[in-house]
Amino acid sequence: MARAGAASDDPVCSIERSLLVLGERWSLLVLREINRGKHRFAEIQTSLGIAPNLLSTRLKTLVDAGVVRKRTYQEPGSRHRDSYHLTEAGQELQVIFGALQQWGDRHCPRPSGPSAARRERTTGKPVHVGFISNETGREIPHTDVVFELTLDR
Amino acid sequence: MARAGAASDDPVCSIERSLLVLGERWSLLVLREINRGKHRFAEIQTSLGIAPNLLSTRLKTLVDAGVVRKRTYQEPGSRHRDSYHLTEAGQELQVIFGALQQWGDRHCPRPSGPSAARRERTTGKPVHVGFISNETGREIPHTDVVFELTLDR
Repeated sequence: MARAGAASDDPVCSIERSLLVLGERWSLLVLREINRGKHRFAEIQTSLGIAPNLLSTRLKTLVDAGVVRKRTYQEPGSRHRDSYHLTEAGQELQVIFGALQQWGDRHCPRPSGPSAARRERTTGKPVHVGFISNETGREIPHTDVVFELTLDR
Repeated sequence: MARAGAASDDPVCSIERSLLVLGERWSLLVLREINRGKHRFAEIQTSLGIAPNLLSTRLKTLVDAGVVRKRTYQEPGSRHRDSYHLTEAGQELQVIFGALQQWGDRHCPRPSGPSAARRERTTGKPVHVGFISNETGREIPHTDVVFELTLDR
């Protein structure tokens, strides 16, 4: 998929546009591994057990979509290799991951409990994802939020 | 898909579990229509232009997943029919929708601008989705949030 900025056949709905980037299962898992500090092809591949050609394709899609960028590194005596990093757009996916994680833990729980906790880096205190008033900075309950359509579908 | 609560072969990662419910394109669009106040089969079908058998299947999946429930209604002279409503779990998807929408508008923008704005119901003032400290209720920048794994994948 090309970076979606100017394409006129993209879905009008921004939820659909986001899911074009994220909706594919492996793409999400690849992003999660990079977010966890796995930056090299071999590390990501080993961690996920994904076929190399499939991982190449997914990484290319994510680079084209502007959420992952490549850097070149070289170890002594080896050839140049690529490492993979989140762009700013990729880092901002964190809020989506947090929202999905929180919902999954609440509504599709596992007997063994949540798979991850979201915490403030400096204090270790728990955080959650929610709606925040742009004006007051205070949390707004989701039941008090309306989505106002600005375009016809 | 069955309600995921007790199944032991569900993905450990709650992001994956959420996407099992949401990841399928039509499921998300059906939820969006119900969230916009379209509760009857014919209304949802007309609005999306989806084949009736496909819509039936998607609604059944969403009911089984516990995010949509059926109610029965009857109009004078007609037989009983079902209408479709979000459960509490379905309503809590609002935060995920908001996060996806916000990211899509920022990083996959369309020339014609955002497709929806998120506002506080009572004041009409804009809101956004972000991380919130459980303790202080204050917004935490996503760069200050860490996901701490509580289970091995």
